Amino acid sequence: MAEFELIERIRRRAGRRDDVVLGIGDDAALLAPPAGHWLVAAQDTLNEGVHFAPGSAPADLGWKALAVNLSDLAAMAATPAWALLSLSLPRADAGFVDAFVDGFMALAAEHAVALVGGDTTRGPLSISVALHGFVAPGRELRRAGARLGDEVWVTGTPGDAAAALRLGREAPAALRARLERPLPRLAAGRALAGIAHACIDVSDGLLADLGHVLAASGVGAEIELARLPLSAALEAALADPAARWHCQLAGGDDYELCFTAPADRHAAVRAALAAAATAGTVIGRIVAGGDCRVIAADGRDWTPPARGYQHFGSNA
Amino acid sequence: MAEFELIERIRRRAGRRDDVVLGIGDDAALLAPPAGHWLVAAQDTLNEGVHFAPGSAPADLGWKALAVNLSDLAAMAATPAWALLSLSLPRADAGFVDAFVDGFMALAAEHAVALVGGDTTRGPLSISVALHGFVAPGRELRRAGARLGDEVWVTGTPGDAAAALRLGREAPAALRARLERPLPRLAAGRALAGIAHACIDVSDGLLADLGHVLAASGVGAEIELARLPLSAALEAALADPAARWHCQLAGGDDYELCFTAPADRHAAVRAALAAAATAGTVIGRIVAGGDCRVIAADGRDWTPPARGYQHFGSNA
Repeated sequence: MAEFELIERIRRRAGRRDDVVLGIGDDAALLAPPAGHWLVAAQDTLNEGVHFAPGSAPADLGWKALAVNLSDLAAMAATPAWALLSLSLPRADAGFVDAFVDGFMALAAEHAVALVGGDTTRGPLSISVALHGFVAPGRELRRAGARLGDEVWVTGTPGDAAAALRLGREAPAALRARLERPLPRLAAGRALAGIAHACIDVSDGLLADLGHVLAASGVGAEIELARLPLSAALEAALADPAARWHCQLAGGDDYELCFTAPADRHAAVRAALAAAATAGTVIGRIVAGGDCRVIAADGRDWTPPARGYQHFGSNA
Repeated sequence: MAEFELIERIRRRAGRRDDVVLGIGDDAALLAPPAGHWLVAAQDTLNEGVHFAPGSAPADLGWKALAVNLSDLAAMAATPAWALLSLSLPRADAGFVDAFVDGFMALAAEHAVALVGGDTTRGPLSISVALHGFVAPGRELRRAGARLGDEVWVTGTPGDAAAALRLGREAPAALRARLERPLPRLAAGRALAGIAHACIDVSDGLLADLGHVLAASGVGAEIELARLPLSAALEAALADPAARWHCQLAGGDDYELCFTAPADRHAAVRAALAAAATAGTVIGRIVAGGDCRVIAADGRDWTPPARGYQHFGSNA
């Protein structure tokens, strides 16, 4: 099987949008952005042995490669539209490509994303997706913007994906699904436009990612362990509270949103999340300074063993 | 060195453009496309051991990773603007990243391209660039559109990069430069808008890439060996004419443009190329059918040992 046959297999299932003037099959894609909007662009790569284990199901990899990029657009309150896919494979494997595209397009269809270009090439298994969407000027959410008095929120139940990674083959299905098929929070991101002050997606761990918001905003935060949302699956899977806190605060791969909003807009946040059918929990507040304190139920500081995923170096 | 320090090293030298609302440092870039234009998007990946040899100079890799994508935009007659860079590295190597970005930005600056996002991650050395530009609707060049009676043109002197690859350390500097620092033909592509009928960039080999134009256009071609432009460096480096023809017709990595234009617009093509300071040569013509004949000086067909680079499978 040559590259061109692989590309043809992908092209046949690439999805359609009226704003795709010319999709897969030329030197570049031609796309018609909507007038009066900003283009929102993100690119993330997943490498075998680093971001996923050898032998991972190709359909899960397709789903996840798109999900991690959709999550970036969710954190900007953007509406996704077009994806480019670079797929490096050790050998031309039509079965792998078909299953991969099945998983990719299953999630793409949910968010009306069309696959418009990219390349397939030989190399160690690696997936790089560039994703494009739109946002009306001023409606975007940024990392910078958190203010004193803001509440710190998180969607869903972070820590589930980290627990699945920790438990490996022993992980229950509910946790594994969170690791293998994350659900990017696009509806929530868009609903929070005009309400939230700052937003980021939790890819490297709640404390690490919240830390980026704090650094960009020039503020600090206090997070309360007792307020961390805990899924029934995580509670059942890990008996030790400290192990759960570690997953919740330092575990990556959840792709929830962490955002801040004024305390006096609490009801508006609740309504926005309800409209987006997304659970959300206040876990703390923005304070002066630049640090993030984690406060235990007894009022003492709790020091996590690690703050999040380090792409280079040791991970606790 | 953590990922965030690497990103900061890249961010400091990412280049500026007025249409970059928010560049490196958030979940996604915010970009302001010009009104009334199509967005042109391409993504290409280079893997160590496949697209470049282990030990290649990082500055050359930075240059080339952008060049191959600029070449795709050149073939569409687009004007480039914004790049996303995904860089996978076996370890966090600040010296490598600095030199890589030097090479990348040296070419980016020539074409007013800003680096606006992407990621750095651990993995086998691999570079994936997504490049964005613009073209006015109807001014784009496509692979489809070649017509009976068109002349077939190529810019520059294809085969030089393939000869450099073949000769390895023995290759003269003039040929090595063509392999390591290809010059994408953006000015030529734009100058040919409204004149050329079809265009492609020569990345996999002249016959292979011209074959894509013929397939997309539903036509055939006749190419004359005697008309192939030959650089002095290639003539000096390879004494055997058949070895040279093989480099010229089946060698990849030249990133010249191959295009077709009506014979009665020959003077207009000449003027456009002169305005773009780019050499160009008529090497044949579009004919009926779907095949590409290669005709030797004695009028007989010449069969090349291979038609171009195969991404999966054996390469002659």
